[in-house]
Amino acid sequence: MTLILKKMRTKMKLDNVAKILQEKNNIEILTHHYPDGDTLGSAYGLCKALQDMGKNARVILSGKAATKFDYLKDGVKENSFTPEFIMSVDVAAPQLLGDNEESYSNKIQLCIDHHGSNSLGVEDSYIDATAASTCEIIFDLINLMNVKITKEIANCLYTGVSTDTGCFMYTNTTAKTHMIAAKLIECGADFAVINRAMFETKTKQKLALERMVYDTLDYYYDGKLAIIYTTLAMQDKLNLGDDQMEGLASIPRQIDGVKMGITIREKQDNVFKISVRTNGDTDACEFCKKFGGGGHKAASGCAINGTLESVKQQLIDAAKEILQ
Amino acid sequence: MTLILKKMRTKMKLDNVAKILQEKNNIEILTHHYPDGDTLGSAYGLCKALQDMGKNARVILSGKAATKFDYLKDGVKENSFTPEFIMSVDVAAPQLLGDNEESYSNKIQLCIDHHGSNSLGVEDSYIDATAASTCEIIFDLINLMNVKITKEIANCLYTGVSTDTGCFMYTNTTAKTHMIAAKLIECGADFAVINRAMFETKTKQKLALERMVYDTLDYYYDGKLAIIYTTLAMQDKLNLGDDQMEGLASIPRQIDGVKMGITIREKQDNVFKISVRTNGDTDACEFCKKFGGGGHKAASGCAINGTLESVKQQLIDAAKEILQ
Repeated sequence: MTLILKKMRTKMKLDNVAKILQEKNNIEILTHHYPDGDTLGSAYGLCKALQDMGKNARVILSGKAATKFDYLKDGVKENSFTPEFIMSVDVAAPQLLGDNEESYSNKIQLCIDHHGSNSLGVEDSYIDATAASTCEIIFDLINLMNVKITKEIANCLYTGVSTDTGCFMYTNTTAKTHMIAAKLIECGADFAVINRAMFETKTKQKLALERMVYDTLDYYYDGKLAIIYTTLAMQDKLNLGDDQMEGLASIPRQIDGVKMGITIREKQDNVFKISVRTNGDTDACEFCKKFGGGGHKAASGCAINGTLESVKQQLIDAAKEILQ
Repeated sequence: MTLILKKMRTKMKLDNVAKILQEKNNIEILTHHYPDGDTLGSAYGLCKALQDMGKNARVILSGKAATKFDYLKDGVKENSFTPEFIMSVDVAAPQLLGDNEESYSNKIQLCIDHHGSNSLGVEDSYIDATAASTCEIIFDLINLMNVKITKEIANCLYTGVSTDTGCFMYTNTTAKTHMIAAKLIECGADFAVINRAMFETKTKQKLALERMVYDTLDYYYDGKLAIIYTTLAMQDKLNLGDDQMEGLASIPRQIDGVKMGITIREKQDNVFKISVRTNGDTDACEFCKKFGGGGHKAASGCAINGTLESVKQQLIDAAKEILQ
């Protein structure tokens, strides 16, 4: 029992998180790899707030952020310092630190996250799985530290609040999510510009990719399972970077009658990243656990090695008992 | 001056609208034609509230509603009565009453709308162009009448709030929009189911249509103008009903660099419906006025007769001074 308490203080209060940060300086904030709107919005939003408190702070990216997120850095000051306090935002497991795992995973002193499955094992962890995004938690935290939410901070937090809920579309959205969005708009968040960049902007190449992907669409189990895929050859043909390969996962789930939509993406030869999106009661997280992955009930992921054909067949087989 | 006051009481207060409705019975509520989520959500939401007050009320549809909106009728009681009071919701002009124009346009006693361009000319008109949807106004109205917002009413109002803002994505969204969404979720609105039905559900035929439409895509003026079209032949080939032809208009605007996205839809031989969506400062309403249409700054429409080629060329020519 003592051991467990040592590993993670259950029900740490956000007040205490605020107090810890108020006392610290020279802070590094870690994101997860393949950084998305929530980890980036949380990190840059908090970084700006800490800087506005007169502290030194910087964001340590785990992996490269897509250029569409560049605006999140607006207002962040470059400051030179020796880190004294290391924290992570929206990082649910050590391996999600990517290239930073080895150098950072044992040094994290504070973990803020909204994934109930968090396995970082940091003693000071504030994990609220009822929050639709980590940015919701950061919003409360900044308020508790009595820092003004500037337009630049609001843009960061709105980005996470919006992207992690599919623009308020998904089941994780709560009344509180909307209350926070209302406040962020009042603080000047450029919500329409952000939403357009996050959800409504496609390059001509991306449109071409979607057309190609439509050709890969197959249905199984009376249309309850839909699978699409992308290959490195397709990516090469359209000259698309890795960051332009995101955002396809919602395509198969959108189809009428589909309970589970799977997107298979070839990352390297014989290495495939799998994105699973579900509707209704179908549990994507349980499904992905079969392949050593995880995530949320409606949106999860895993990785499988093998040929495209074998990977696809494994997924179809694994879905059988869930969908039949 | 007196004449103008007779035609429309400027700045009618919503309190007064509430008082008028509290005193009336046997109420008919008119929608606009090609009924969308906002006109239907407003009409059915208000109808249920009036019925909950013990009144007779019914919705008069102007044109057929798509089956995806069927849930809006949940909880509406069928009642037989001779109408004594006729009102409209979200109807901006007499011709938008469609088949009901002749029989109803001169009988409307109360008009509630959020289109600043409203030209119904009803003496008792409550028009709030700052409201992102008419459902926002109906939300306030139902509260002013002290009627409980049931789950069924919440589902109606959420539908309009969400659909008219592109799920909180568009510039018309305000902090108030989000505050109302929060309250409606607290009242039990099935927001995730509604959003999935409104935004994330495509039939297999619809997917096939999108692929066809991608083939029609053309760019003009250095990619600032993008035009797509659908023809009756395409609709026939895929066996799609008119209600399944909606929702394409967002495609051309989504493309990086596009300031104006135009969707041309063949409605009958030589009769085309034009949907214009714009980004940034480009004014879709001003553009559509050139063809006798109108709407909002970022989303407007008009109708043009002629061959597909001539209609398209007229649109390209008209866009020249705006985009060059």
